[in-house]
This record gives sequence, C-alpha cells and structure tokens, in this order.
Amino acid sequence: MAEEEVMNKQVILNNYVEGFPKESDMSLVTDATIRLKCAAADSVLLKNLYLSCDPVMRILMRNPGHDTSSYFTPYAPGSPLSGFGVGRVLDSGHPHFKAGDLVWGTTKWEHYSLITQPQALHKIQHLDVPLSYYTGILGMPGMTAYAGFHEVCSPKQGEYVFISAASGAVGQLVGQFAKLLGCYVVGSAGSKEKVDLLKNKFKFDEAFNYKEEHDLTAALKRYFPEGIDIYFENVGGKFLDAVLLNMRVHGRIAVCGMISQYNLDKPEGVTNLMCLVYKRIHMQGFTVRDYYHLYPNYLDYILPYVREGKVTYLEDIAHGLENGPSALVGLFSGRNVGKQLVSISHQ
Amino acid sequence: MAEEEVMNKQVILNNYVEGFPKESDMSLVTDATIRLKCAAADSVLLKNLYLSCDPVMRILMRNPGHDTSSYFTPYAPGSPLSGFGVGRVLDSGHPHFKAGDLVWGTTKWEHYSLITQPQALHKIQHLDVPLSYYTGILGMPGMTAYAGFHEVCSPKQGEYVFISAASGAVGQLVGQFAKLLGCYVVGSAGSKEKVDLLKNKFKFDEAFNYKEEHDLTAALKRYFPEGIDIYFENVGGKFLDAVLLNMRVHGRIAVCGMISQYNLDKPEGVTNLMCLVYKRIHMQGFTVRDYYHLYPNYLDYILPYVREGKVTYLEDIAHGLENGPSALVGLFSGRNVGKQLVSISHQ
Repeated sequence: MAEEEVMNKQVILNNYVEGFPKESDMSLVTDATIRLKCAAADSVLLKNLYLSCDPVMRILMRNPGHDTSSYFTPYAPGSPLSGFGVGRVLDSGHPHFKAGDLVWGTTKWEHYSLITQPQALHKIQHLDVPLSYYTGILGMPGMTAYAGFHEVCSPKQGEYVFISAASGAVGQLVGQFAKLLGCYVVGSAGSKEKVDLLKNKFKFDEAFNYKEEHDLTAALKRYFPEGIDIYFENVGGKFLDAVLLNMRVHGRIAVCGMISQYNLDKPEGVTNLMCLVYKRIHMQGFTVRDYYHLYPNYLDYILPYVREGKVTYLEDIAHGLENGPSALVGLFSGRNVGKQLVSISHQ
Repeated sequence: MAEEEVMNKQVILNNYVEGFPKESDMSLVTDATIRLKCAAADSVLLKNLYLSCDPVMRILMRNPGHDTSSYFTPYAPGSPLSGFGVGRVLDSGHPHFKAGDLVWGTTKWEHYSLITQPQALHKIQHLDVPLSYYTGILGMPGMTAYAGFHEVCSPKQGEYVFISAASGAVGQLVGQFAKLLGCYVVGSAGSKEKVDLLKNKFKFDEAFNYKEEHDLTAALKRYFPEGIDIYFENVGGKFLDAVLLNMRVHGRIAVCGMISQYNLDKPEGVTNLMCLVYKRIHMQGFTVRDYYHLYPNYLDYILPYVREGKVTYLEDIAHGLENGPSALVGLFSGRNVGKQLVSISHQ
C-alpha cells in the first residue's frame, strides 16, 4: 500500500435486484484502497460522515433495461452504491472547496469518496443545527417536500391535504408545511407508533394505519367527507386509485414517488384515471433536481422554523457503514420510523 | 290533443346500459305531446335541427351508482336522451331569446324541446358557415379542442404532438391547431380511410392505424424517435400506457376522454404512471365547461380559418331522428368518419 493510501470500506451492489431488496444483495468489501491526497483538478476527496437511505435507491438497483434507464444512471454491480450524504472535505482540487469544508450532496457508500463532479455538492453554512439534518430536512428530502408542496400543489389556506407514507423523510415535512399554511392535514402510515407520531409529534389533524383499513376508499371518505384538495403521492397503486375516487373538483396530485410499486415486476394497474376528467384534476410528477435553484429560498423559509422548534424532524439513525444495507432494506418494509440515515463517522 | 299541441317523437333510453351500447338500448316513441306555445317565463321552446353524438353520452347511460354520478346527471330510463344540438326558437319566455333565433347548446333527442334553463344556450350570430358546424367545430367539440390544446397543453412551436382518436370530432381539430402553431403532429385512428384523411385532408405529418400495430409502444417510438411533448388523450387504457413510455421530459398530457374504457365494467389498469415522475410530466383532466368564457375568443380565432379554408371539418351526418340511435352506437365501434351528428329537420 503506497504512502497516503488507506483501505476504504465500501458497500457494493452484488447484482441487479428483483423483488424486495435483501441485505444479501449488497456486500461490505474492504479490498479497495484510496489515496488521501487527490491530485486531479476539479475533484474533491470527502470523508463521509452520514449517508442517506432513500427510496429512489431501489430504482437504481434495477436492471437498466427498464424504462428508467435514460432518466437515472443505475448502479453497476460490483461497484459501491451512491446516494446523498454529508461529508468533510479532506483535500480539494476545485477552487470552490477547501479542506475542512462540510458539504452535502451525492456521494458513495464508502468511508472516503473521490467526487469528480463537486459542483453538485452544497457547502454547509449553518452549523447551529444537527449536521445529520443535511441528509433530511435541510437536504434533498426537505427540498423535495418544499418544492412538491409549495411549487407543485399550489396550496391555499383551508384546503384538505392527504399525505401517504406520511411519517417518512418527506411526508412528515409536507404535513407540517401544510399545517403552517392553515390546511387540514391527514396522513397515512403503516403502524400505530407512526400514527401516534403523526398526530402527537407532527400535529397532523388526523392519521390512520392503512394496514388496518380493508377499504381505503371508505377510509378516505371517513377522513375527508368533503373530499381531498391536495394529495401528496408517495405510494402509488391501490392508494392512488382510492384517492382518485375521493378527490375534489380542481384537485391537485403531486407525484413524488410510488414506493409500493418499486419492488413489483409489473406495477399494479391504476383504474380510476377517468376521475382526472370528471374532477378536472391536475396531476404532476416532479423530481427535486428541477428545483435546486430554490434551495436558498428554502433555507430562508425553514431555518427559522427549525431554530424555533416550530418544525420538528424525526430521524432513524443506523450506526456504521456495515449496518447500511439493513437500514436501506428496512425502508421497503416500513421498518424505519422517520428519516432513515446511516452515521459513518463523527469526525 | 289540445290546440297548439303536436305529437313529439323522442329517443328514450330503455334502461341503464352495461357493456357496448346497442340500438335496442334506445326506443323511438311517438306518444308524447308538446304545446308549441310555452307560457312559462324563462323557458324557451326549440325545434331541433341537428343533434350531436358525443362519447360522453355513453357515460350518462350508466347506472348512477358509478363514481361519475356527482359530476354528470345521468339519463333517466324512460326519458329522452339529452345532448348538444342546434335548434330554432319557436317561442320564448326568456328576454334574451325570441322566435326565429338559431341557438346551440344542450337540448333533448326529440323534435321539439322545452328548454327550462335557456341561459346555457348560445345564440348563433354567424350564418355564413354551415349551421351543422355548431354541433362541432363551432360548438362544444371545437371549444374542447381549443381549450384542451391551447389552455391545457401550453404548446410551443416545433413540439411533438400525438393525438389518439385523431379523426374524431375533437381530434381532427387539435391536429390542425397544432399544425397552425408549427408543431409536428401524428394521429392514430382505426381504419385506412381515417389514416388517409389525417394525412391528406387534415395535413397531419404522419398517421397510423392502431389496429394494425401489435406493439403500440414500438409504433410510437417509430413515429416519435425523440419522444412526445404533448399527448392529447381521447382513448385511455393501453394507449396511455404506451404513450407514457414515449413521453419526453416535461411533457404534457391533456386528458379529454378515454373512449376505450367507457364500455368496460372495470377499466383497464394503467401501469406506467411512474413515468410521470421520471419525466416530470404534467397530466391534466379537463372538461370544456370550465372554459366557455373563452368562446368569444375562440370564434375570433376559428372563424377566419374556416372562411379561408385553412381549417377543414369533416362531418358524418345521419338523417332523421329514427337513425340517431344507430349513429350514436356507431361512435363506440369507430364506424363514424369525422364528427357524427344527426340531421333532424331543415327548417
């Protein structure tokens, strides 16, 4: 091993995944080495501190023959996973970064990462809030909730808002943003513990456990006797069908994701799309990467709420890179309570 | 029969319809009488001249237990069908109308109709164009094409536009409006005759017969190697699934109707909705009734094109109320070539 080189632990994808991902789809390997001085201009060497577990990572595990291939670059079997994370700059060949800077953005599932496109990293300026928040409320999920709710949904005070997967990284924020605006907010989640959190910690007006509802359409009718103005879609499939029947005229559906569908070979068919016509519904898919130019506005909006405790953020933190695969897999059975992330190093 | 009364032939619905509608679902009855002087204030007596056959009429034949019931008033078995038509005012108790006026709007499938809400009738001002056009290009289908394309789709010159059911009452206009704007336009239809019309009469760039395509996704890929910016949705089901795979990033789908689904007990499931996220697609259902305030603007737009022959309109005219049921049923097997209407009387 040459001088300045260290062994670099990595989580690699063993092969493309079908069905629900398993821990055994990934391996922890320690045979890679990395030089701690990066000579190349315009690249940055990071020490990863926190890694984010996000549902989109399941999509990147698919065989690239899928229709997604031209919109996301899938993982390559044998290579480490990539995803959002927080890191400290160890060395920089890019004029915008210097050793010691803290950053968040796209990194890899390993202890040290050479980032060859550091222009996609955000330098962290505010350190009076937990550093881990830059994988969640102050990072990609926060921007997703902000853009998806305020930009896509055109919300108005007093409107009826429904959020599925509502205790997750994005959902818990959408609900709190809707409450701040004066909306009536109901969320669904998959356990009693999560339902209690939605009502008591995040102050949703109502919440229910979808696993206890045999008839989702009837459940939504119960919580929204006058119908739903805004649906923040994280789940897809049968959920979307039930929501369509309960939407109000001129309702809006922001499609953020469809986590119930990612592990299916063939997605469930959605049958109630004629409701889009009957009710003149506006349904829009979005991804946060179209909205990063609003990140400064978002920080101006969210930081005072975080500092004053008016918005809370619940994290579910696994410790150690070796526990990353288990944490990531847990997203798809709903094992996490709040934003799932992995703490890699404290310094 | 009292003085001033005449026998009034009517087409009534026998019972709620399941599956494809048949002529025998309707009956021509002649046992109703109507007074030709209407005493009531605010009502108008029409002699119907043309009746319009529109796909939405199939939805109104359903048992009102369906989810549509709160958005459309379904037909009542034993009562005449209602729909759009052109008529001449015989007598009026409404200050805005007088005997002799020609109007278009919602009327009934009968020779004479007492209209108790005449505020929904449009007085016809321009008589240098065919009167029947007020069931089509100058009536509801024209406004539907105009609002759906120009208001919902946000079209730009040079964009790639796909229209299903493209030779129908609305589709033939959307394609011509898109060509006028400088878009690349492809339409699908269900026969060689219709495909020839799309290319030669309506000047679409390309057209294809969907019944000859075993793989709609591949067909669309052939006609749109760079993808579709705008889809004007008239068909639904498998068509929508194939289109979703071929949409471009930031594409728009205006959902006007889904005629392939109206005769199914349970609609086909649409499985490719995650494309809404991958490609950040804006999908909007609309109905023309939200846009009638733009009717004067539409007449300013369309009348010069009609007079100069720059927009053409193809009608398929059945003659006689007794041939109405057959004409209406034909919509759902694609028997009509162009806008289907029924001529009832010439005076």
